[in-house]
Amino acid sequence: MSIPAEGRREAQRLEGFSDGVIAVVITIMALGLNVPSETTWHALGQQLPSLLVYVLSFTLIAIYWNNHHHLFRATQAISGAVMWANLHLLFWLSLIPVATKWVGEAHQASLPASVYGIVSLGAAAAYALLVQTIILANGRDSIVARGIGSDLKGRLSVILFTVGIGLAWVRPWIAYALYVGVALLWLVPDRRLSRQASP
Amino acid sequence: MSIPAEGRREAQRLEGFSDGVIAVVITIMALGLNVPSETTWHALGQQLPSLLVYVLSFTLIAIYWNNHHHLFRATQAISGAVMWANLHLLFWLSLIPVATKWVGEAHQASLPASVYGIVSLGAAAAYALLVQTIILANGRDSIVARGIGSDLKGRLSVILFTVGIGLAWVRPWIAYALYVGVALLWLVPDRRLSRQASP
Amino acid sequence: MSIPAEGRREAQRLEGFSDGVIAVVITIMALGLNVPSETTWHALGQQLPSLLVYVLSFTLIAIYWNNHHHLFRATQAISGAVMWANLHLLFWLSLIPVATKWVGEAHQASLPASVYGIVSLGAAAAYALLVQTIILANGRDSIVARGIGSDLKGRLSVILFTVGIGLAWVRPWIAYALYVGVALLWLVPDRRLSRQASP
Amino acid sequence: MSIPAEGRREAQRLEGFSDGVIAVVITIMALGLNVPSETTWHALGQQLPSLLVYVLSFTLIAIYWNNHHHLFRATQAISGAVMWANLHLLFWLSLIPVATKWVGEAHQASLPASVYGIVSLGAAAAYALLVQTIILANGRDSIVARGIGSDLKGRLSVILFTVGIGLAWVRPWIAYALYVGVALLWLVPDRRLSRQASP
Repeated sequence: MSIPAEGRREAQRLEGFSDGVIAVVITIMALGLNVPSETTWHALGQQLPSLLVYVLSFTLIAIYWNNHHHLFRATQAISGAVMWANLHLLFWLSLIPVATKWVGEAHQASLPASVYGIVSLGAAAAYALLVQTIILANGRDSIVARGIGSDLKGRLSVILFTVGIGLAWVRPWIAYALYVGVALLWLVPDRRLSRQASP
Repeated sequence: MSIPAEGRREAQRLEGFSDGVIAVVITIMALGLNVPSETTWHALGQQLPSLLVYVLSFTLIAIYWNNHHHLFRATQAISGAVMWANLHLLFWLSLIPVATKWVGEAHQASLPASVYGIVSLGAAAAYALLVQTIILANGRDSIVARGIGSDLKGRLSVILFTVGIGLAWVRPWIAYALYVGVALLWLVPDRRLSRQASP
Repeated sequence: MSIPAEGRREAQRLEGFSDGVIAVVITIMALGLNVPSETTWHALGQQLPSLLVYVLSFTLIAIYWNNHHHLFRATQAISGAVMWANLHLLFWLSLIPVATKWVGEAHQASLPASVYGIVSLGAAAAYALLVQTIILANGRDSIVARGIGSDLKGRLSVILFTVGIGLAWVRPWIAYALYVGVALLWLVPDRRLSRQASP
Repeated sequence: MSIPAEGRREAQRLEGFSDGVIAVVITIMALGLNVPSETTWHALGQQLPSLLVYVLSFTLIAIYWNNHHHLFRATQAISGAVMWANLHLLFWLSLIPVATKWVGEAHQASLPASVYGIVSLGAAAAYALLVQTIILANGRDSIVARGIGSDLKGRLSVILFTVGIGLAWVRPWIAYALYVGVALLWLVPDRRLSRQASP
């Protein structure tokens, strides 16, 4: 069997495990949503911030899942470094539910808004690192390397999260607005990659 | 490799991830079942409403899983819109456990009965939207479009959930009866689709 | 593509979803294990009953996973009834974690011991029903039907669980001894089926 | 179909189920991370021990996942004993989240540090047992047997965990240092196996 076929199989297995972890992360995050304490509209309304930040986190994780898929579909070779860079990304994603829960409980405070940004920045940086590790393993001329190009969105995300972490101390809602901005930025997957990756 | 084969692979991967999310949703919902506070029949009996609404939610999610499978088996092409319509459906399904838990704790109040209907309606509408997005991506003459036909059951579900949301304010049990009606309606998968989808 | 190939693919998909649900059930059951209240041997020792019943439930679910695999590997045709009989089995398995948690918290009372038996009996009966539904869909002369034979172990399990449910009211430990007996009975998968199912 | 192909398929299915369980274990462990009680740096800092032991447990489980994959990729034959040895490993891994949570809550006490070592030792011993069972099923001259060789790292892990269990009673941090040592030891997968296993 040729080496690319072996590399493709490894890529698929890594993607399968990552899909499993992401599926669990996105679902157990819903356990952070509390049942209202009373059966009144007022008690239900108190859960609204929790629900909104849940929507944001759900969207961000869905974006990672989507981009992760486009990335691995174009990958021909997996190294040990790629495997660990991928687990490093999953580690940061696994922290999103607890950060989400904290924001839901205390959305008006600066610290949770800032910590949510730190966890998101960790995931964004881990994704960028994963991309670089994959390019290193596949070569600068590989489909995946050409497909990613300058990774403008990745850089912008890192900047927006970093600014959010700081501005959370001015007003938490500015930080949340920036995080929502990152989500909107990524909602369309990188067209060049998905086009070039097609056989 | 031809384009349909590529589309089939994408459809299978989307189905795999959805299966993962649905498997976790259906299982963590059981975490909402509380251990009785005492080892008496009375204390056990107090958990009966929780168990009954758990059976209902389990059945509804199982129906989505089943129909989702029949839908994607007949799908030849996946667009970015289909991917997001699918994630939108998973979002609503992920809210079912917390709605189920609330009903289990306060089944005699109108608001939880109504909110359960809203979440169920969200899932039903998301499924209908997913169906339309898939038809758009596959064409009006595709197997999947002809298989679905008029989607009578989908429309009926939306109506029944909507009526239930309202009538929960008259008597909660009327709402629950309507939700059970939706489950009974769907217990048999759409025969036309499963027949036409067979190769 | 021939009909058996289609049936095999359906069987694999059902098995994949069931594996996902069982993997989540077996894992979230560990959430029922409480952290000791103090860092003393005495406090740790108080968790021993929880751990022991966890071992029993883990073993029982592992047995279902194992037998489920042998069953579906020999299955050539899937009907709608098989799909629902399988979901019915998953429903009972999803109740095992809460029953396990209750026994762990109150292992000296009769009611939890009896309820644990009822849930286990439900799963055992659901498995027997699934076997019959598969035989109906595949025919009396199919590999799977001949492989199962008289299903002696299945019948014995149902009897042992039923007796345990009753004797839990005499002494809970008699019930637990009978449930452990079922686990020991099944630890070796049905040799005839695994042999005949091999290609 | 030849017997090796059948054995490969069985190995893949076992690996798939194990991946599912490991994905859930690694993710629900994050549920043990508590939301800080207040929105202050002090309250956040109190969660630091929980986070650090989470990082350790995440790494240890990731190592098992990685090595487990290399092991099964080289495996040609699965016996009933391999299946149960694998479930035995998953059992010990499923106990890591509760041990992690206890350490996070009481990292200065000796008993949790010791119990964490006992659970880790259980997993390490279960892995060594799985390796021996696989060698027994595949033969002393099989790829997998030659690839593993003397299993020096496996023996060292067992020793380090055993020493840690004891020294936890002198100073808990010595035990944690030894557990971190095991993680560092394994961070690079066994090169010989991954090289020989390649086709």
